[in-house]
Amino acid sequence: MKVTVSRKAYFNAAHRLYIKQWSEEKNLNIFGKCSNPNFHGHNYEIIVHVKGKVDELTGIVIDLKYLKQIIKHEIEDLLDHKNLNLEIKYFKEVVPTAENICIFIWNTLRKKIDNNKHLSVTLFETPRNFVKYSGN
Amino acid sequence: MKVTVSRKAYFNAAHRLYIKQWSEEKNLNIFGKCSNPNFHGHNYEIIVHVKGKVDELTGIVIDLKYLKQIIKHEIEDLLDHKNLNLEIKYFKEVVPTAENICIFIWNTLRKKIDNNKHLSVTLFETPRNFVKYSGN
Amino acid sequence: MKVTVSRKAYFNAAHRLYIKQWSEEKNLNIFGKCSNPNFHGHNYEIIVHVKGKVDELTGIVIDLKYLKQIIKHEIEDLLDHKNLNLEIKYFKEVVPTAENICIFIWNTLRKKIDNNKHLSVTLFETPRNFVKYSGN
Amino acid sequence: MKVTVSRKAYFNAAHRLYIKQWSEEKNLNIFGKCSNPNFHGHNYEIIVHVKGKVDELTGIVIDLKYLKQIIKHEIEDLLDHKNLNLEIKYFKEVVPTAENICIFIWNTLRKKIDNNKHLSVTLFETPRNFVKYSGN
Amino acid sequence: MKVTVSRKAYFNAAHRLYIKQWSEEKNLNIFGKCSNPNFHGHNYEIIVHVKGKVDELTGIVIDLKYLKQIIKHEIEDLLDHKNLNLEIKYFKEVVPTAENICIFIWNTLRKKIDNNKHLSVTLFETPRNFVKYSGN
Amino acid sequence: MKVTVSRKAYFNAAHRLYIKQWSEEKNLNIFGKCSNPNFHGHNYEIIVHVKGKVDELTGIVIDLKYLKQIIKHEIEDLLDHKNLNLEIKYFKEVVPTAENICIFIWNTLRKKIDNNKHLSVTLFETPRNFVKYSGN
Repeated sequence: MKVTVSRKAYFNAAHRLYIKQWSEEKNLNIFGKCSNPNFHGHNYEIIVHVKGKVDELTGIVIDLKYLKQIIKHEIEDLLDHKNLNLEIKYFKEVVPTAENICIFIWNTLRKKIDNNKHLSVTLFETPRNFVKYSGN
Repeated sequence: MKVTVSRKAYFNAAHRLYIKQWSEEKNLNIFGKCSNPNFHGHNYEIIVHVKGKVDELTGIVIDLKYLKQIIKHEIEDLLDHKNLNLEIKYFKEVVPTAENICIFIWNTLRKKIDNNKHLSVTLFETPRNFVKYSGN
Repeated sequence: MKVTVSRKAYFNAAHRLYIKQWSEEKNLNIFGKCSNPNFHGHNYEIIVHVKGKVDELTGIVIDLKYLKQIIKHEIEDLLDHKNLNLEIKYFKEVVPTAENICIFIWNTLRKKIDNNKHLSVTLFETPRNFVKYSGN
Repeated sequence: MKVTVSRKAYFNAAHRLYIKQWSEEKNLNIFGKCSNPNFHGHNYEIIVHVKGKVDELTGIVIDLKYLKQIIKHEIEDLLDHKNLNLEIKYFKEVVPTAENICIFIWNTLRKKIDNNKHLSVTLFETPRNFVKYSGN
Repeated sequence: MKVTVSRKAYFNAAHRLYIKQWSEEKNLNIFGKCSNPNFHGHNYEIIVHVKGKVDELTGIVIDLKYLKQIIKHEIEDLLDHKNLNLEIKYFKEVVPTAENICIFIWNTLRKKIDNNKHLSVTLFETPRNFVKYSGN
Repeated sequence: MKVTVSRKAYFNAAHRLYIKQWSEEKNLNIFGKCSNPNFHGHNYEIIVHVKGKVDELTGIVIDLKYLKQIIKHEIEDLLDHKNLNLEIKYFKEVVPTAENICIFIWNTLRKKIDNNKHLSVTLFETPRNFVKYSGN
């Protein structure tokens, strides 16, 4: 019997959509105000979904204290109150769209969760725009 | 790497559940107050989910400005502040249940989104009742 | 010691903004799509706020079962799945704006709640538009 | 054409995480404050998802009145305002984690829904922690 | 210039409505299932509202770190994952209705906030039932 | 009969808490990560509350189209996708705390709304932290 366990978390960050292979002008043409050189920001909400077998004795899929801890150490401590473009190494090469931030979080958490468990990550950039990545 | 991008939108409309092959009495027996001949209405909330490959350079699955635009032109401009039974041709033949409204929205948007992208539509009729359609 | 007790409820209804002293054309000019002659509708959410002394023994301001019951009998049973313009006598003379619906609900509930308690009513027409009335 | 119909419901209950094969001390070490011998509690929110063919005439997957009724009779009447450990027979042998409560609700509702329809159940223990079970 | 600063917090607890001057039977007659002797529980949400002058230099009414800290130390650490009737001394004499829990939280926080600031507390027992207390 | 009409709106912006009379070090000591020199950001949500007499004929307090328009032109167009510290003149002298942003919005809208109407502004910096200003 497999159950999906989901846990919400939050971080607030500044970013801009900017592709360094393009001119500043082309970035503004394509990304509009999302490419403001002075940055803007969001309250990002993430939902981490872990699917796996329910342990017969303990009735759990994953220790929630451990799940909270890796979300805090690996994601919140790294991204909260940061400028994604300037302060997160990964986003010096990769444009911090919601899609790419979600993939980054998935890749980071994947290393900390047993491979016999399935992982998905949902990332809300605003209450109206969100993305989900499951590893393929 | 495939990511699902989701976008929420809203429209307010009147409708009634009414099957023209049935008598008025049978409609009221089966659908209850949802078949009130004077109509009732809802704040419908839709979530459009588009799954596709993340472009390596731009980091996006679909241009969000385009997605907003087709939701506005094809759905909101058509359905918002309308009486679905009286003013939307499709619902002259088809009863406007949440299921059928969701299928109608999916069919309408499917024509505007590349076939290499997967489309799902979620429709909330109330905060407690919602439906989802993915094309099959 | 006075505490305010609040209770949420819901009803779904059709309406249009229409002033009978005006021509159809003027109604459409002023109210726009909200005056669609075929009606549109909303999931209305109401919050009833009752402020009064906390009873020293029972620790309550008002019996919540009674409060639920009058909201159900006086408001939900009357307004849910109705066309406000066509089916509610009060709105044959009074345009069913959010303001006027809120006043109507307040007036209706006021008669059922002890005068030593203060009453306010909040009415959400959509999640983004809401009104509040406290009796003056 | 298959559509998923979802319906939310609620129940409030007390519980504790406690495995009778373990000592009181080990329970507290592993489950922490969730194992408080005096119990704590939650506002549980459930979402029941039923996927099936849309009937061509009626435009529905399942009669929503029936769905509401089985959720009320089988789940809310049984679990609401209860102590899960002391009053629900199933949880005398099985620890009432969110995972196990979700499986219990799924098993209970599965018997009441046609086998040609797919059933999933989502259970929110808090707004930040939730689980989902689909039968395997 | 006075601004009201509000901060949300959460705790999960078990309780029952029970007045020791009444028989078990009378408690069940008056409070219904809320008086279940085995307890039930809630995810309580609190909002602490502090109104005061905005400091001209720092632009704040109250240090948010301090506000978070007193909510955590005085309220969450005391009430979270507890049985209010059995484990909180105050509720051995006073029935833990939402009204009384709100007054208790207000009294507790009032001692930790400067008297030149106005304090209100909102307590949600469920998403549909909430109370507010402002000290009189 | 006076009713309060409320309208929600949104803007996303970057900011940092920084007082220019203080050293960079003191800013970091006092404001912590909120003073990150590279900025962070938020999805700000505002609620504009206008209280006034309900017009007897039209049943409204204020033309909602006008209210939406001034919120869009005066607030959203100015603040959305901006860096508050670098791009908004007012915040070159005044630290952009939630309190001060709320006062700025109130002052801006006050000039556009009739003085016989009362104005309040609520500003959510995150779903858990919000402020309200009513002009005194």
